[in-house]
Amino acid sequence: MLLDAHSSPTAVRTAARQGLWQGPTAGLANGYVQANLAILPKALADDFLKFCLANPKPCPLLAFATEPGQTDFVLADQALDIRTDAPRYNIFRGGVLSDSVTDLTAHWRDDMVSFLIGCSFSFEEALQQGGIELRHQTEQKNVPMYNTNIRLTPVGPFLGNMVVSMRPMRAADAIRAIQICSRFPTVHGAPVHLGDPKLIGINDLQAPDYGDAVSIRADEIPVFWACGVTPQVAIKNAKADLAFSHSPGCMLVTDLTNASLAVL
Amino acid sequence: MLLDAHSSPTAVRTAARQGLWQGPTAGLANGYVQANLAILPKALADDFLKFCLANPKPCPLLAFATEPGQTDFVLADQALDIRTDAPRYNIFRGGVLSDSVTDLTAHWRDDMVSFLIGCSFSFEEALQQGGIELRHQTEQKNVPMYNTNIRLTPVGPFLGNMVVSMRPMRAADAIRAIQICSRFPTVHGAPVHLGDPKLIGINDLQAPDYGDAVSIRADEIPVFWACGVTPQVAIKNAKADLAFSHSPGCMLVTDLTNASLAVL
Repeated sequence: MLLDAHSSPTAVRTAARQGLWQGPTAGLANGYVQANLAILPKALADDFLKFCLANPKPCPLLAFATEPGQTDFVLADQALDIRTDAPRYNIFRGGVLSDSVTDLTAHWRDDMVSFLIGCSFSFEEALQQGGIELRHQTEQKNVPMYNTNIRLTPVGPFLGNMVVSMRPMRAADAIRAIQICSRFPTVHGAPVHLGDPKLIGINDLQAPDYGDAVSIRADEIPVFWACGVTPQVAIKNAKADLAFSHSPGCMLVTDLTNASLAVL
Repeated sequence: MLLDAHSSPTAVRTAARQGLWQGPTAGLANGYVQANLAILPKALADDFLKFCLANPKPCPLLAFATEPGQTDFVLADQALDIRTDAPRYNIFRGGVLSDSVTDLTAHWRDDMVSFLIGCSFSFEEALQQGGIELRHQTEQKNVPMYNTNIRLTPVGPFLGNMVVSMRPMRAADAIRAIQICSRFPTVHGAPVHLGDPKLIGINDLQAPDYGDAVSIRADEIPVFWACGVTPQVAIKNAKADLAFSHSPGCMLVTDLTNASLAVL
């Protein structure tokens, strides 16, 4: 295997840049922050920035370009190139997925503004270190995700409902998970709901809108976190003429450590 | 009214000492820590100390006498007399309630060792300041409390099951309550359970073992905190020849501020 949990962030990004790694980044470069990407034309960027600030739980900002066209970011010590260093990207035109590519260079425009958004991988590492089982990992599935009736605060063309991810756990673990995740507000932070899924508009936990269903035991409750799919939904709703994102699961690996994100 | 929310801790203790206030202390001297009392013979005191340390959520120690017979405590700036400064005390003989008195002086023995244990009033103040409704206060009742199947760690003759208090709230408030109460480990800290009461051996929330039933709305879950009644149950189980406690609700008001207990 070219890359594994012990690979450095630079090794992962280099492999992605050279086209040697084009797949998911879960389980690579353990301990380091992986970021969701949202890249939008300047005409929409200020509204999207405000949308993220108005909806910080689903759209926690790790970093953003201060100038249109900026492609280099230094998170911790190493520079990265936003156009090449994720393994795979989605391209949206008019709000519709039009391409999946491993390199954005040929599609880049000087008016594109990049946003790096926190990802659940970071808090999942903290949960695992806290001894909390993550069912989707045990069952080797993608985490189940659901559309909800939780309205986002709209800003300009960005609007929609929150998407949540769900992890089932016993109540004592749920309480501990809330404590652990509260330390990490830039990677979705504490859960937004637990218990009855109908209260947030989810009718069937076994039929997720994204990802895979996981088993829930009789002594467990579902615990729901705001999910990084939310900004992708909002970006589709905004129908930008052009927008880029990472391909789901194929994240941008940064040099920031997960531990460095803890606010206390 | 002799005393109210704006009374100083010294005013409350002075009124208690003079026999001018013999009732509950809820709602008095807002902002200050009120303590549960457990006073035991020296022969049992070391085991009780270890019992509290082994069961910190139901028995969080605020302070304890380092010498048998000690009656004066300085918590923050003012001294208090443990024998006189709570409004009302219970006296147990052989594990059975034998008297309710307003002054322990006539019953004091030089081998008695005092323990001050955190009380839910402190975290309830923090929850209210956080905008979270406390149903028992809204309904002007005592908080409902329940025996559970959660076994305590036994030490010597001290053993039993945890007693919990219950506050119903919506999930988002429960998540916030866990964050708030986690800052206050010496006053029971974070909840120990939420959701299905049967999982901790409670069959009917409308039939509490202590306190009063409160209404629970369809969109709420019960949230359970370790309760200061627990050490009283353990002390009864230990069948001490002599033991003192405060009378339920008639707490010892200290000069410590609730805010000073926050660990972060």
